[in-house]
Amino acid sequence: MKTNLPLDADRLWADVMALAEITDPARPYTRRSFTTLFLEGRAWLAQRFADAGLATRIDAAGNLIGRIEGSHPALGVIAIGSHSDTVPAGGRFDGIAGVATGLEIVRALRDAGIRPRHTIEIIDFLAEEPSEYGLSCVGSRGMTGSLDGRMLDLTEPGGEQLRDALRRVGGDPDSLDQARRSDIRAFLELHIEQGIVLESRSLDVGIVTSIVGIRRIEVVFQGEADHAGTTPMALRHDALVAAANTVVSVRTVAEQLAAEGPDYFVATVGILSVDPSGSNIVPGRGRLIIDARTTDPALTKRFVEIIDLESIAHAAAARVTRASFTTLHDGPPVACDTNLRSALRQGARDLGLGETDLPSGAGHDAAFMSRICPSAMIFVPCRAGKSHAPEEWADREAIAAGAAVIYQAVTDLDRSLTVKLKGSG
Amino acid sequence: MKTNLPLDADRLWADVMALAEITDPARPYTRRSFTTLFLEGRAWLAQRFADAGLATRIDAAGNLIGRIEGSHPALGVIAIGSHSDTVPAGGRFDGIAGVATGLEIVRALRDAGIRPRHTIEIIDFLAEEPSEYGLSCVGSRGMTGSLDGRMLDLTEPGGEQLRDALRRVGGDPDSLDQARRSDIRAFLELHIEQGIVLESRSLDVGIVTSIVGIRRIEVVFQGEADHAGTTPMALRHDALVAAANTVVSVRTVAEQLAAEGPDYFVATVGILSVDPSGSNIVPGRGRLIIDARTTDPALTKRFVEIIDLESIAHAAAARVTRASFTTLHDGPPVACDTNLRSALRQGARDLGLGETDLPSGAGHDAAFMSRICPSAMIFVPCRAGKSHAPEEWADREAIAAGAAVIYQAVTDLDRSLTVKLKGSG
Repeated sequence: MKTNLPLDADRLWADVMALAEITDPARPYTRRSFTTLFLEGRAWLAQRFADAGLATRIDAAGNLIGRIEGSHPALGVIAIGSHSDTVPAGGRFDGIAGVATGLEIVRALRDAGIRPRHTIEIIDFLAEEPSEYGLSCVGSRGMTGSLDGRMLDLTEPGGEQLRDALRRVGGDPDSLDQARRSDIRAFLELHIEQGIVLESRSLDVGIVTSIVGIRRIEVVFQGEADHAGTTPMALRHDALVAAANTVVSVRTVAEQLAAEGPDYFVATVGILSVDPSGSNIVPGRGRLIIDARTTDPALTKRFVEIIDLESIAHAAAARVTRASFTTLHDGPPVACDTNLRSALRQGARDLGLGETDLPSGAGHDAAFMSRICPSAMIFVPCRAGKSHAPEEWADREAIAAGAAVIYQAVTDLDRSLTVKLKGSG
Repeated sequence: MKTNLPLDADRLWADVMALAEITDPARPYTRRSFTTLFLEGRAWLAQRFADAGLATRIDAAGNLIGRIEGSHPALGVIAIGSHSDTVPAGGRFDGIAGVATGLEIVRALRDAGIRPRHTIEIIDFLAEEPSEYGLSCVGSRGMTGSLDGRMLDLTEPGGEQLRDALRRVGGDPDSLDQARRSDIRAFLELHIEQGIVLESRSLDVGIVTSIVGIRRIEVVFQGEADHAGTTPMALRHDALVAAANTVVSVRTVAEQLAAEGPDYFVATVGILSVDPSGSNIVPGRGRLIIDARTTDPALTKRFVEIIDLESIAHAAAARVTRASFTTLHDGPPVACDTNLRSALRQGARDLGLGETDLPSGAGHDAAFMSRICPSAMIFVPCRAGKSHAPEEWADREAIAAGAAVIYQAVTDLDRSLTVKLKGSG
């Protein structure tokens, strides 16, 4: 790996580590969107943005944006970003590395005496991870006109609606039009791979080809809460039995579809809750969330059709009602922009870094951003593919190399996008 | 049903309804042991005990005891009791009706100008329902020398040990010997049936023949928390998949054993939790509690042997570890005392009430009390057999009729137990 990078690896690393310290101490690394800790992290970030000479604001969709005006602002914006929220007991790099990369690129440009023609924005998207309101990518949805009233009505277990939470973090749910952008010419995101391809092949950078489509479905079974001692087996309406059988179905069907190949397919039940949840009470209600991902929407369609039928059958067998089978989220697979991918690939080659094309099994803000502007991503290697867990790890040099690729692409695009606009103007 | 009862049905009903008001307003009827609400309920009860002329204390095991000295205190104690704690979102009658019955009997004796020869005690046993510490019948265990150091070490999710919680509610974990009793000559408990036999046969009272044995087992599966998008199906270590398969096994095996007959068998998974519990995280840990009950211990033995083997197989299939398969509680079936059952049956007949013998599918404090003294129970009908749920209901007249049966038995035993002691002295 090349070590003579056009930016300060230590300064970039220090930002990532400093933000990691802002965590629930009992459950590192946890800085969930909309929490006090999240706002504390953002206050720290906003100060770092300001220190780097960026004008800082929060848009109507709750995104924290740092901006430095270009010498030719009419050319529009090159945006770099990711997110600073985490899952519960998550890691220090997922999202954070991408936000810190944007910040370091602005500082490196300044240190090099470069004033870009385009305006540069660093975006910390609000709530990329699934929030307590049952929605992910809240900020990038908002920026791309994809956050609707039904979503704003979503309510977290404590009873707060997303619209009120958005207001609480500085957004304005009544003025989401103002968050929608048409001036962004390119969006670039750096992210840890969350897989093992780069590490196992000793490569520095993955140029993302496409981002999987994600379907998220809530299934609720309603039975009857009865005494676990006095209710004979034959008279039970046990909602957990139907839920557990559905978990088994999801696993079995997902394994079959994944094995068929060549397209990517995974499905997971990551949340399952029981109510009332007492050891001597037959569960009256069971709720689970299914997360299904693929590069081929036809696979998800087949999967959902099978699980729909099987969950109805499981409900009938347990003498309970399948009260809900609701799509919470349905994002199609998204191809990354060819032109931006070329710029990223060239940047990696210029730096002497090893790169490869890769699909993304995880959803990212870049998938929403592709609705309003050319968007692309790179992955940097992470240890054993672990993410969304405290042991998530990316090396200092790996993040710096990836950031340098984005730096190269930004300076390249700042020139080439100018030429294109001139040519088309 | 006879309406000319030897006690005040309205006064008894008013106590039950008043205690029901002391509930988590967001989740009626919830007054879980060790909570502020529980202590509030007990303070109200203690005042009612005092108003009835009872000397009130909390013993070292955390039981609230009201006592009225007999004319011949050397004859020992006739105790009446149950519990005032509830499950989450439980009912107004389970336990409470039994405590209020004891209180009303003391008032009715006083109103009738009867001073019993035996000392009478009304006992509100601590934490009969499964507590946050993973243990039920805490108070009756303590009173019968069945609360050991390992149990006192149990810890609730917030980190508090049972021994500290016991101290917090007025008990003394270092002096449990003082709670152990040898002076009780008879223990009687009234409880709602929590089944449909009495209601469907239009009977007033069930004379309990025996109380089921209860085995409670905690099973923990440990896998790896991975990203739900980037971890291929074939590389997962999904703890929820193993847990869900175990829920299905518990159901299937329990149905088979119950269908074999003639003995009673039920098994339930009422608690299942997932960690980290995020929709885009493969579950790293799954925990469930199995509750198995029978009148024939051999059935439980077979059940546990099968589930032990099957849960190991489910763990292997999901590439996770079965980290724990731990018996939290193992109480054998208990037969009620023949002499006390006769007194209760005679009481019902004297009052012109319809009665029948019944086994109890639920565990009760009476099962522990039978370790130190003759113990028996009666059931009163409840609507549709519902309990441990807000719709739990017993009619005013049904509770009063049951209380009258206990009243009759107490006055009978107060005489007959005296004679027996004289005869044996």
